[in-house]
Amino acid sequence: MTRGKLLSVDEYAKGVLEGDRITLARAITLIESVNPTHNLLAEQLLDRVIKEAETRNTYRIAITGAPGVGKSTFIESFGYWLTQQNKKVAVLAIDPSSALSKGSILGDKTRMEKLSTSNAAFIRPSPAGETLGGVARKTRETIALIEAAGFDFILIETVGVGQSEIAARRMCDLFMLLLLPGAGDDLQGIKRGIVEMADLLVVNKADGDRKKLAAQAVNHYQSAVHLLSAHPGGWTPEVITASALENTGIEKIWNAILRYQHQTKTSGFWVKQRQKQAHHWLYNTIQEGLNTLFFEHPEVKTLLKQLEPQIIRGEKSPFAAAKNILDAFTANPLDNTSKTTTI
Amino acid sequence: MTRGKLLSVDEYAKGVLEGDRITLARAITLIESVNPTHNLLAEQLLDRVIKEAETRNTYRIAITGAPGVGKSTFIESFGYWLTQQNKKVAVLAIDPSSALSKGSILGDKTRMEKLSTSNAAFIRPSPAGETLGGVARKTRETIALIEAAGFDFILIETVGVGQSEIAARRMCDLFMLLLLPGAGDDLQGIKRGIVEMADLLVVNKADGDRKKLAAQAVNHYQSAVHLLSAHPGGWTPEVITASALENTGIEKIWNAILRYQHQTKTSGFWVKQRQKQAHHWLYNTIQEGLNTLFFEHPEVKTLLKQLEPQIIRGEKSPFAAAKNILDAFTANPLDNTSKTTTI
Repeated sequence: MTRGKLLSVDEYAKGVLEGDRITLARAITLIESVNPTHNLLAEQLLDRVIKEAETRNTYRIAITGAPGVGKSTFIESFGYWLTQQNKKVAVLAIDPSSALSKGSILGDKTRMEKLSTSNAAFIRPSPAGETLGGVARKTRETIALIEAAGFDFILIETVGVGQSEIAARRMCDLFMLLLLPGAGDDLQGIKRGIVEMADLLVVNKADGDRKKLAAQAVNHYQSAVHLLSAHPGGWTPEVITASALENTGIEKIWNAILRYQHQTKTSGFWVKQRQKQAHHWLYNTIQEGLNTLFFEHPEVKTLLKQLEPQIIRGEKSPFAAAKNILDAFTANPLDNTSKTTTI
Repeated sequence: MTRGKLLSVDEYAKGVLEGDRITLARAITLIESVNPTHNLLAEQLLDRVIKEAETRNTYRIAITGAPGVGKSTFIESFGYWLTQQNKKVAVLAIDPSSALSKGSILGDKTRMEKLSTSNAAFIRPSPAGETLGGVARKTRETIALIEAAGFDFILIETVGVGQSEIAARRMCDLFMLLLLPGAGDDLQGIKRGIVEMADLLVVNKADGDRKKLAAQAVNHYQSAVHLLSAHPGGWTPEVITASALENTGIEKIWNAILRYQHQTKTSGFWVKQRQKQAHHWLYNTIQEGLNTLFFEHPEVKTLLKQLEPQIIRGEKSPFAAAKNILDAFTANPLDNTSKTTTI
């Protein structure tokens, strides 16, 4: 929180539930904070709005693809198109590299000029977290706030290298993969596992001279989709061409998105996937919290520093050392003497 | 421990350090036990023998390959050949499926008749653990005991499906992959990542009509090896043909194993890899211990049971629930009331 003072939980909750975009932005900043006082407030806020968020029926869509595939332009066109259908749209990013490269995706809001000036849209650049785990969890918490604020669609942009896609898959309803005409997925640096996760494959930049290549790519991916194992929701992933330049494909994509929703809601997969995801975030949050508790523990830190060299020299078994350290932790798990100074 | 009563730590340590195979077998059973009293004894034993183990300079070799490639026959031939060079050899298995399928590899000791009757050999079937993590850790602890008992070589058999190879890679000095002539690694069900981990590739069953196919396979894998990223030890993985039927290849493999040892010891990679591995097992053991402490905690169990349905129904945020559960744990981390009855 660099801007302004903290609000009360009531004020945050009220503003978010009313869909006030300034309060929403500040609430997200609160969630992304590493300050323990902010974390406590953020937890209370989430607990306050979670039921409301769950009733909103927001459609969560992850959008990924290799650099150069035209993700930002696509998201801007698609997002803008959604606002034209009277839908409220939020755009987020999961970017595991942001801590290092400082905002490589969605960092420059002005790239989405048309969308960012729309009253029905909310664009949030990627959070700067230290670990992907943390970034992903905070993205998931941000989704809850955005849903509480009444958005109909959340578009989650990821970078296409693997880890952030797995995180996105665990928080979205539909996973969309953008592809270039011509080049195979291996040449685009897209891992096979990412192709397998996709519910919708969009061959982008299918315009001008690239139309023929795009048609080949569609054939290629349609066969690939049929070879891959069956979708757990009984859905056959669709392959669609699109072009921002020639303004084509958006409506076909929109229809596929509706078909997907209809079919997976009918089969029960939609709800089941959301339940599985909530379950995942419970365990993910516990694991992170437990590890923070443990590895930030002053005596654990001291012992690790002492014992690691002995283990590396083969003077002590890593198993016995682990036992020593665990014992020190359980003797006094809340010894936060080194942390109280930072609050 | 089903056979006989427990020995004292002194008795276990003495027997193991003297290389007594019966005590060694009993000590391994102690390590594999899930009984907390046994675990405590096992930790003391490991701490007692670890320094001795580290001075033995045992060569740890992982051997993997798809079912049908002839792993057991190869390990028997190779192990027997090593004993003929006056080397003491132990054979272990990491089998993540053992808990389900009950001993699919090395389960039947009689498959290695020649080797199992040699005084210089020690064969241990795969442990039956509940998780691969646990099985792998216990295999790593077993290695320490075997080294303390003065074995020169440890051959670790794995199943070739992924998880157990990653575990083996983290405890061995050299990783050997057995392949069939003709079929590509994809057809053999060997994941690319496993090929990339290999220091030595052996095209097995290179005999009779298969000799030509074997030569093709050697060419194929030699190109693959050159395409793969550089080995961190400055070693170029070698591709060698072998046949148990025609009794060929063992000596070439032996020479490659010696070259690998010489080169990686000279470059410093050998020691660096072992240090990294010890470091890994420290953190692996801590993580497992911490999770056991947490998820076996009676109040944590009760709360999880209570809160999971609420989370799944969207009535409570998984983040707030995680906080509740972590708080309950830290209030009294050693509340083992439900466990004391089982000791």
